[in-house]
Amino acid sequence: MDPSRVMNSSITTHPMKRVTIVCEKLAREAILRILTEVGAHGWTLWEVEGSGNQGPRMADIPEFTNIQIEVIVRPPVAQELLGRLQRDFFPRYAMVAWETEIRVLRSEKF
Amino acid sequence: MDPSRVMNSSITTHPMKRVTIVCEKLAREAILRILTEVGAHGWTLWEVEGSGNQGPRMADIPEFTNIQIEVIVRPPVAQELLGRLQRDFFPRYAMVAWETEIRVLRSEKF
Amino acid sequence: MDPSRVMNSSITTHPMKRVTIVCEKLAREAILRILTEVGAHGWTLWEVEGSGNQGPRMADIPEFTNIQIEVIVRPPVAQELLGRLQRDFFPRYAMVAWETEIRVLRSEKF
Repeated sequence: MDPSRVMNSSITTHPMKRVTIVCEKLAREAILRILTEVGAHGWTLWEVEGSGNQGPRMADIPEFTNIQIEVIVRPPVAQELLGRLQRDFFPRYAMVAWETEIRVLRSEKF
Repeated sequence: MDPSRVMNSSITTHPMKRVTIVCEKLAREAILRILTEVGAHGWTLWEVEGSGNQGPRMADIPEFTNIQIEVIVRPPVAQELLGRLQRDFFPRYAMVAWETEIRVLRSEKF
Repeated sequence: MDPSRVMNSSITTHPMKRVTIVCEKLAREAILRILTEVGAHGWTLWEVEGSGNQGPRMADIPEFTNIQIEVIVRPPVAQELLGRLQRDFFPRYAMVAWETEIRVLRSEKF
């Protein structure tokens, strides 16, 4: 039995990574394409206001509309996704990305 | 003294669980009712775009509007909530749910 | 080398804190000012529906529009921010705040 699973009465949760990406709306289609390419099975996306040192493109714009994208993936997929973002997206788009440890029900969906 | 508390000068934070639910809008009232039943003291909810393998109902719909609900609860309440979702909601609604470890100020509010 | 860094092929992630604040819209400018004062380098903000025991001001209002603000900061800045919120904001505004451990790419941006 996988010791990283936690059982509590009838509930079993499984460790996954949530990767969150905050970026300019311009990057939307390219990001969604990369999510498909690395094998992510679903995402949520919503508009946020943002302000920050997120690249030269936004240096003179104190507040603007960004998108925040969240995707839940297995740990190796998170590594692959972050690697692709770092290599292919960070040089071209104003964005930040981070990962959070989470636990999910129904690991077969991810 | 509870050793899970972290003190740093005048700041004491307390471990809690954040449970996040992404589901079709149709499930909204049923979810909010279950949050009350398990004893959750507050929630936030917003609309998100989503795409994913989130159940047969959405198999043919590549992008759609979902809702994302977050609630902060004590760990046993998180278990109870996830158990209720798994048993009563997952068979009927397109949804995903996960928990994240967080630390809050003012634990008496949760 | 900092042992808290995780290397995986070409990906290095760095531990940070995400501080999330849910508050009444009235507190918006005051919160954004405090984020600048503690040295946070960027934030995202969006409107959420909320319901909860979030202070006397909202005791009679079952559902209302709040704002959810997320900021990623180094751990000492998270402590400073939570301390300021606890001391200066919690007595005056209906709000909750929590921190989550995350790992970021490009720590120099935070």
